[in-house]
Amino acid sequence: MPENLASIAEKVLRLANDFDLTVVVAESCTAGLLCQTLSEAPGAAERFHGGFVTYTKEHKTQALGVPSRLLQEKGAVSREVARAMAEGALLHSTADLAVAITGVAGPEPDEDGNPVGLTCFAVARRGRPMYDFERRYGNIGRTAVQQRAVADALTALAEAAARRAVEA
Amino acid sequence: MPENLASIAEKVLRLANDFDLTVVVAESCTAGLLCQTLSEAPGAAERFHGGFVTYTKEHKTQALGVPSRLLQEKGAVSREVARAMAEGALLHSTADLAVAITGVAGPEPDEDGNPVGLTCFAVARRGRPMYDFERRYGNIGRTAVQQRAVADALTALAEAAARRAVEA
Repeated sequence: MPENLASIAEKVLRLANDFDLTVVVAESCTAGLLCQTLSEAPGAAERFHGGFVTYTKEHKTQALGVPSRLLQEKGAVSREVARAMAEGALLHSTADLAVAITGVAGPEPDEDGNPVGLTCFAVARRGRPMYDFERRYGNIGRTAVQQRAVADALTALAEAAARRAVEA
Repeated sequence: MPENLASIAEKVLRLANDFDLTVVVAESCTAGLLCQTLSEAPGAAERFHGGFVTYTKEHKTQALGVPSRLLQEKGAVSREVARAMAEGALLHSTADLAVAITGVAGPEPDEDGNPVGLTCFAVARRGRPMYDFERRYGNIGRTAVQQRAVADALTALAEAAARRAVEA
């Protein structure tokens, strides 16, 4: 696992510990890398509940409750679906904080014609407004897209965990 | 990813394709490695639905419906919990075939006092009797336990997929 991912994951769990939060994730194109990265960080047993790896549209609906109509209309790689995934992850866990990743790792564009590297994210925290964003990494290779997506998801989680201090 | 894992995963998805089956997984101590391994194999988009990474007992209950009483009585690392995880994975997906892994990757024994390396598995296929088994890898290091567990889970999946030819 790349060093930078390990260090951001450690930061996420340290902040989760500082602010007494637990974390769950939902990931598609990264296919388990986000879960693995968090599970290897110190404090995982206390702060990381686990995650949903929803590789197909159907499993996004079955495991997370993402409406199939939304998947049809917006495609699996969209901010709207990322939001529904994050919402579903909170709904199907008792964690406080969720991040969702859905993107095109490649090497081919997805079935909806989205380009390799396009990745959408959402961060949800119970009782707070949800936040979403997207990145276009370009066709930099499957592993590189996955690693950059995991890094961006972890950074967003860290920000969402730390935000409590300011807003509360 | 180790070469042997990639080749067993490829075999699983080739058999799934031959027998028109889809696959879902539930994993605990391997924390996403099984999902990742399957997602990198040819045919993943058609045959691999995704998985549930249930790192805590609570998330095993929330995401997969493993009874909390069972977790208390048997501990998270038990054949009974592996069976409940595999059953839950089928229940929360439309896949035909599920494998579950729950074990102690280490470096410390788990909270129930199970030794590092003890790993329990269950394989479920709709309409068939479930199958479970356990392995004791010993204290060979966290990564080695995880890789051997993923290899054994994939081998069990391949056998369950191929069994159709004999029984049908």
